[in-house]
This record gives sequence, structure tokens and C-alpha cells, in this order.
Amino acid sequence: MSEKTTRFDMVKARHKRRLDDAIKNGEADELICGLCKLINSKKNFFTSSSCSGRIILLGIKGTGKKNAYFHRKWHSKVNFAEVWSALSEKTKGTIWFKMESFIIHIGALNKNDALKVLEIKNKAGIKRGGIISMKPGKIIVELIGTEDIAIPVKVGSKIIVSESFMHEAVNQANKKMEENLKRLKVFESAVKGGLK
Amino acid sequence: MSEKTTRFDMVKARHKRRLDDAIKNGEADELICGLCKLINSKKNFFTSSSCSGRIILLGIKGTGKKNAYFHRKWHSKVNFAEVWSALSEKTKGTIWFKMESFIIHIGALNKNDALKVLEIKNKAGIKRGGIISMKPGKIIVELIGTEDIAIPVKVGSKIIVSESFMHEAVNQANKKMEENLKRLKVFESAVKGGLK
Repeated sequence: MSEKTTRFDMVKARHKRRLDDAIKNGEADELICGLCKLINSKKNFFTSSSCSGRIILLGIKGTGKKNAYFHRKWHSKVNFAEVWSALSEKTKGTIWFKMESFIIHIGALNKNDALKVLEIKNKAGIKRGGIISMKPGKIIVELIGTEDIAIPVKVGSKIIVSESFMHEAVNQANKKMEENLKRLKVFESAVKGGLK
Repeated sequence: MSEKTTRFDMVKARHKRRLDDAIKNGEADELICGLCKLINSKKNFFTSSSCSGRIILLGIKGTGKKNAYFHRKWHSKVNFAEVWSALSEKTKGTIWFKMESFIIHIGALNKNDALKVLEIKNKAGIKRGGIISMKPGKIIVELIGTEDIAIPVKVGSKIIVSESFMHEAVNQANKKMEENLKRLKVFESAVKGGLK
């Protein structure tokens, strides 16, 4: 066994273990579990951190990531009442209502395996993503969906959007979440047919 | 000269010509021209399609990219009155107010050159991007900023946001445009010091 293969197998085993633990503890993002398991079942591939997409209320207390916090996070469609009520709670800084698309990290053994992932990504109509790191036995491909919403909805203690606008925003976020999950399904089919 | 080098040089010459033409015709995105010229001055690198970031009013008449159109497009900060007045004009479908970060495509001769770009990208704090295609003599790295806003602001003939909300949205878009351009400058410095 080459050094490259050994490294790949070790990294793959670690990420598989982490996913299994997350599933056991109910912490895994259910919608993406099937896809992750499918990819892990392929000899030359594995998944590391992945997310099926989410709708969030994100608080920003200053500048930089350190000052951001999740006020709410959903990995599914949301309903207006739930969002509006969460918005009415005490919060700090500026609150953004965001819909973020899926993000998947796929480890590949060889360059050609990584290029195969990019080929399937393109076939599935996923516009964003590429090889983000390349080391012997550890090539990582990142895939990102492009259905996104980002709206500042509350500044300090003041909600700056109307209820009727927020209805439309939730409506659009749910539509985009649906499109996002459809795209993931298309990608899953492409993986089934295309990765060995 | 190897076949690989010949192909790289041909592709690089074509993209350089296209950039020069765009500059001559005043069609080039000025804010990114300096960076593009800098990258093109490096032996093993070139830029193809790139954008410094933009604030747009995007119309969506149905589903799919074919049904999207630019109602307005700015490669700079905007002022409220300009946006609000554009919004009041006759439009079709749903209008989104969006701030989109830079997107840069860099061609590299070799795998190691491409990895060098990724290294510099990480050093400059650019989170998104990767190698999106790899052919002998034509490796393309895509870099994308992450400062984004996307807000549905008009449905049919009805503006669904208030003037005071739109003031805040424009304010946030301008702030994000500034962050975005700062990040580009950091990347430009990193290119100066890091790419040969």
C-alpha cells in the first residue's frame, strides 16, 4: 500500500467515524446523511463537513466572524409565525434573515477522482465549487449551491421590516430551500451513476 | 516548447487581448483592471472573466437564469435616491436588490502554480474558491468574495419595502461593497508579494 493510499484511508476513516457519531447522537444534518453515506461507500471518496442548506437568523454584534452568532437555525422550510416570534425576542446587534445553500466537502484519492467530482458537479448544474486543497492522498473538493437570501431585518431592538414583507421573505426563502434540496437530489443521482 | 506551454500561451494571449479590448472600449470593470494587469504580467498566470463586485437590481420573470435581467447594475457604492428612483420605474417580475462580491478567474500553467494561487487566496482571507478545471496548460482557479446581500424588494408593480428599510439596505450594501474592495486590495498585495 502506498503512502498516499494509507493517508487517504486514515483521513477517510476519521471522517466516517465522525459522521457515524454525529448520526448516533442525533447531531447530523439528516437531509444530507444519505448523500454522505453514499459518497463514503465509494472506494476513492469520502465526505467531511457538509450541510444541506439552512435558513437562519444570524446576529452580528460588530465586524468579523467572531462577533456573529446564531439566533435561530433551521435545516428545513420555516413558517412565518416561528420566524416573527423569534425576531421579537431580545437580541443583540443586527439580525440578518438568511437562506444559505448546501455546502459539501468531498475527499478524493487522486487528481482524476477529484476531476470526476467536478464533472459530476457540472452535470448536476451546480455552479460553484472547486478543488480547495491538494495533498498526496488528500484532495478536497468543495461544492456550494447558489440559492441565497440575506436581509437585514432588525437593528438593535428595532425590527426594520413589516410583517407583510417578512411573509414574502419567508416565502422566497422556502422556495429557494426547495430548489436547493432539488439540486442536492440531482447531484445524488449523478453520484450514483457517475462515481465508482 | 512543450504542447502544454503552447496551449497556455495561446489561451493567455487570447484573454489578454480580450481585456485590452475591453479597456480600450471602456467596457472593463475599472476597479479590477489593475489586479488583472498585475496577474497577466506574471509569466505563468493570466486572468479571464473577472468582476470587482456589484450592486444590482435584478429582475426575475420566472424560474431559471434565462428569465433574469439586469434592471440596474453598479460597480461602486450607490445612493438611496438612485436606487429608489430606479425601483419606481416600470419593471417586470420580481425585483431583487443584490450586492454580489468579486469573482476572479485565474489561469495557471502548472498544478503547483494553481496551488500557489490557493495559498495566496487563503492568506488574503478569501474563504470561497478553488480549482474549477484542470487541463494540460489550462488550469483555472476561481476566487469569490463572501460579502453578499439578496433582498426581494418589488413584486410585479408593488414595491414591498419601506423607504426607511431601503435606506438601511443601501447602507449595508455600501458597507459590504467597501469590505469587498478592501479584501480585493489585500489580495492584490498578496499577489504582488507571492506570485512570480
